[in-house]
Amino acid sequence: MAVYTDVTDDDIAALLARYDIGEALSFRGIAEGVENTNYILHTDQAQYILTLYERRVDPTDLPFFMDLLDYLNRHGIACPAPVPDRGGHVLQTVADRPAAIFTFLEGLWVRRPRARHCAQLGKTLAAFHTVSRNFPGRRDNALAISGWSALVDDCLGRADEVATGLSAEIEAELDYLVDAWPNSLPGGVVHADLFPDNVFFIGDEISGLIDFYFACTDMFAYDVAICLNAWCFEPDQSFNVTKGRALIDAYRATRPFEDGEFEALPILARGAAFRFLLTRLYDWLNTPAGALVKPKDPLEYRQKLRFHRSLESAREYGL
Amino acid sequence: MAVYTDVTDDDIAALLARYDIGEALSFRGIAEGVENTNYILHTDQAQYILTLYERRVDPTDLPFFMDLLDYLNRHGIACPAPVPDRGGHVLQTVADRPAAIFTFLEGLWVRRPRARHCAQLGKTLAAFHTVSRNFPGRRDNALAISGWSALVDDCLGRADEVATGLSAEIEAELDYLVDAWPNSLPGGVVHADLFPDNVFFIGDEISGLIDFYFACTDMFAYDVAICLNAWCFEPDQSFNVTKGRALIDAYRATRPFEDGEFEALPILARGAAFRFLLTRLYDWLNTPAGALVKPKDPLEYRQKLRFHRSLESAREYGL
Repeated sequence: MAVYTDVTDDDIAALLARYDIGEALSFRGIAEGVENTNYILHTDQAQYILTLYERRVDPTDLPFFMDLLDYLNRHGIACPAPVPDRGGHVLQTVADRPAAIFTFLEGLWVRRPRARHCAQLGKTLAAFHTVSRNFPGRRDNALAISGWSALVDDCLGRADEVATGLSAEIEAELDYLVDAWPNSLPGGVVHADLFPDNVFFIGDEISGLIDFYFACTDMFAYDVAICLNAWCFEPDQSFNVTKGRALIDAYRATRPFEDGEFEALPILARGAAFRFLLTRLYDWLNTPAGALVKPKDPLEYRQKLRFHRSLESAREYGL
Repeated sequence: MAVYTDVTDDDIAALLARYDIGEALSFRGIAEGVENTNYILHTDQAQYILTLYERRVDPTDLPFFMDLLDYLNRHGIACPAPVPDRGGHVLQTVADRPAAIFTFLEGLWVRRPRARHCAQLGKTLAAFHTVSRNFPGRRDNALAISGWSALVDDCLGRADEVATGLSAEIEAELDYLVDAWPNSLPGGVVHADLFPDNVFFIGDEISGLIDFYFACTDMFAYDVAICLNAWCFEPDQSFNVTKGRALIDAYRATRPFEDGEFEALPILARGAAFRFLLTRLYDWLNTPAGALVKPKDPLEYRQKLRFHRSLESAREYGL
């Protein structure tokens, strides 16, 4: 939640000299993202976002992200589009970091999504998957099963500092997921982090999606499961079936949702809850006391995980 | 350097319902200011800044600041103008904080001001003083002589942790300033914090001034002295007389600079350096280790203070 790298007026002038997007009129750091540094750049032609990639992003992944955002834009999925310089290059170096300029996406994110927002999300997610299926690029999901084992190893020794019995619960869950994880469902590029703050609305319509830096090749239904967890639970962690139905029905109306995908929802939702439980737990255990960026509560995702674990089959969601 | 208070999409909708400035199209927190929370608010009509006032701003000062910004705008000094709601009210409550919407000021701040920027600053500062002299509001300078004594008391016991001998130097300086501080120079409302990051340029022209939350009633020449310290020293803390001349000459060309004001420059510049030495020292001693907001080096201002102390008279600046 802070600007990590200062970009000077001279840096901006030097950068814009390579583009045909006008002269800088204003340039303000925005307090979003913990992986990247972001500025709103207003030129005499339009508004843009300048992103500098900090340590947590692997520079070898950047061409994948740039190509994906470009592809999505050209196929009607609204998201920030990388803007090429006069030589056709998207990736730049600014203040010694890899950087890129993007079109500015209007919209606000909805703090308390209602069922109508979940329906919009379902429709947009299905449209995204329909397009991303044919995207030629590929990126492994670093936070899938194999990545979970490494995170579990890092956290297990201290997990009980957060809640008694958490270690044992995590170990057992990992064993179960490794055994039961599906591997033959339809897939392609998924967003993998489509929380409400990554979905912009104008009024009740989605204006676009942002923050594709976890995007990877995985099962589409896993993306749906992440969204169920992120959008369809109430603050007390009860599952709101009306929101869940709105999401799934709108998704199905746009992209066929196979029986196998539906049946797999409980395990995929367990896996999705497990992934965010682990990363939040890791951040919780590794954030210095007094840091300005307050880590998110990992136990919220343990509650979701337990809910999914309590179901005998996907029918029991009531979707 | 962080957004301190989250403002939701519902908060914004409720706020804008009281205004005639359109519907929200985007709303992003900006990573500026440590006293306030700031958002860039783009409506279908224009761009605005929404400011929420956090603890460090005294709410009873807000009417003074609002009136000042409004007055300056109406008298040709470019700065953010508070935007009234349909009832004519500027001050609002958002997320339980006092808040106001301002017009958006274009421009970039210059990281390494050159002499031509200092000349622009001198001209604009003099124009501001010419206008502010007749502003009817009044606000005491909390960081003038009386405030310094309190800060000195807070810091003295630990000042030598920062540099050996600093305590004794501060005590002696305070004694000198209390005895010699002038009190009959022309005055009115001064900005009192006109560092480069509070002055926006488009190309080589100033587009406006921001951040008036230290503005107070004091001597105009004290504002000039603050600017000399903030704009006319090189990174090695040597005084750049070319920049100083550019500032003073441009100031004089717009508003008469009396002999008494010129003569008082060394003591005013000592006082100005002392004020920033003290506040930086206070922040340095009171910022927890590991905080994201890194405190600024107080000793930079000790070097400036020592330079001014070394002069026999204002003539020696070479201005």
